[in-house]
Amino acid sequence: MREKSGYMCNLMNLVKLIFTKLKQEKEVKMGSETFTVSTGSRMEFVDITGQIQKEVSRSGTSDGVCYIYNPHTTAGLTINEGADPAVQDDIVAVLKKVIPMNHPYKHMEGNSPAHIMASLMGSSVTVFVENGRLVLGTWQKIFFCEFDGPRSRKVKWKLV
Amino acid sequence: MREKSGYMCNLMNLVKLIFTKLKQEKEVKMGSETFTVSTGSRMEFVDITGQIQKEVSRSGTSDGVCYIYNPHTTAGLTINEGADPAVQDDIVAVLKKVIPMNHPYKHMEGNSPAHIMASLMGSSVTVFVENGRLVLGTWQKIFFCEFDGPRSRKVKWKLV
Amino acid sequence: MREKSGYMCNLMNLVKLIFTKLKQEKEVKMGSETFTVSTGSRMEFVDITGQIQKEVSRSGTSDGVCYIYNPHTTAGLTINEGADPAVQDDIVAVLKKVIPMNHPYKHMEGNSPAHIMASLMGSSVTVFVENGRLVLGTWQKIFFCEFDGPRSRKVKWKLV
Repeated sequence: MREKSGYMCNLMNLVKLIFTKLKQEKEVKMGSETFTVSTGSRMEFVDITGQIQKEVSRSGTSDGVCYIYNPHTTAGLTINEGADPAVQDDIVAVLKKVIPMNHPYKHMEGNSPAHIMASLMGSSVTVFVENGRLVLGTWQKIFFCEFDGPRSRKVKWKLV
Repeated sequence: MREKSGYMCNLMNLVKLIFTKLKQEKEVKMGSETFTVSTGSRMEFVDITGQIQKEVSRSGTSDGVCYIYNPHTTAGLTINEGADPAVQDDIVAVLKKVIPMNHPYKHMEGNSPAHIMASLMGSSVTVFVENGRLVLGTWQKIFFCEFDGPRSRKVKWKLV
Repeated sequence: MREKSGYMCNLMNLVKLIFTKLKQEKEVKMGSETFTVSTGSRMEFVDITGQIQKEVSRSGTSDGVCYIYNPHTTAGLTINEGADPAVQDDIVAVLKKVIPMNHPYKHMEGNSPAHIMASLMGSSVTVFVENGRLVLGTWQKIFFCEFDGPRSRKVKWKLV
């Protein structure tokens, strides 16, 4: 009798241990984090790949999916060529040309073009992680797209 | 002998119990759900943040990633400023100005501009959830982008 | 004494077994895979829905989220109408019209418009999977957007 109750007690403890560990693992994985990006002009792309790779490495996660999220409404995120900075300049220049600056905007803060560009680029990007590294194409870098700077901005990320 | 077999039997049941519980947890998490959005004009943004927050709260999930998906080809989803409705009007007005209405379109339904805008905004958005709340920036709201209304539309979402 | 140590040993083995199985499950889920898309023109949309559905079916996963990722900087991914190919032609034609070809681009490879279109369409799409099927709207298909072809391209995908 005593033996059986000790045995059941051990089994219960084992079950508790397993669920606690699973819950901890999930909670660690589920936390999101934030870092700061300082932008230097009204409109520019800032390469944040190194910062995100650093955070991924620090997290110790080997394989998963990394979500990067921009909480601002006059900025965006995109993935494009990082080797030649002229590509970033060309994207910014053409967005400026295509989205009119002198339209009779109803929003009175003068930054409606920045809001439109934010929606065109999008609020988040999703990148795979394998062996602790972001899985990007040969020429790809992750860019924070500033459309109404210069400002101190936040970027959120989560690794699942 | 009998004792050992009873012991193994208990262990097997324990393993079964654990995997059943894990599978149930995963299945509950994995279900996607749908709600309806009624749009009132040809082109407009509808703030669906409250609806999604309600669904997230009802799900009882504390932390995770919420995917919102638009199953229509003449509508999209975006995250942008919700405080001043003029921002939504400005985005819609400039999309109308930039995407030509009088181009010699090959698609004969007259809604090619709506299809193009759908791809420019994108078919889904991804938002973090912490402590049961959508993690949005101060001014951010989630918008359903109607480009070929008025219609009754569906929005799908999943919380992982 | 010996019995207890055998009992603890069995419990330890059980715990190991469970964590090994959980880790294996996660690793299987976490692997990303790649397939090739051959494009035939400078700019075109290629319907990759069938290929992705085939991969999802082969994975045996019933329910989850499928991420599709484009590792190139002059191509993108989008979800739009697949029934009438004229829609794809119209999207490509209007992108060509809106993004200037004769702008004084700084990037000297002559493909800056392709880089800009890549960011406008986006580098990834997210689709739910239920009962082993991609959950797409009635008219939706998943397209690889070639903006600087013809080329042999890669598409990465992951099912979680």
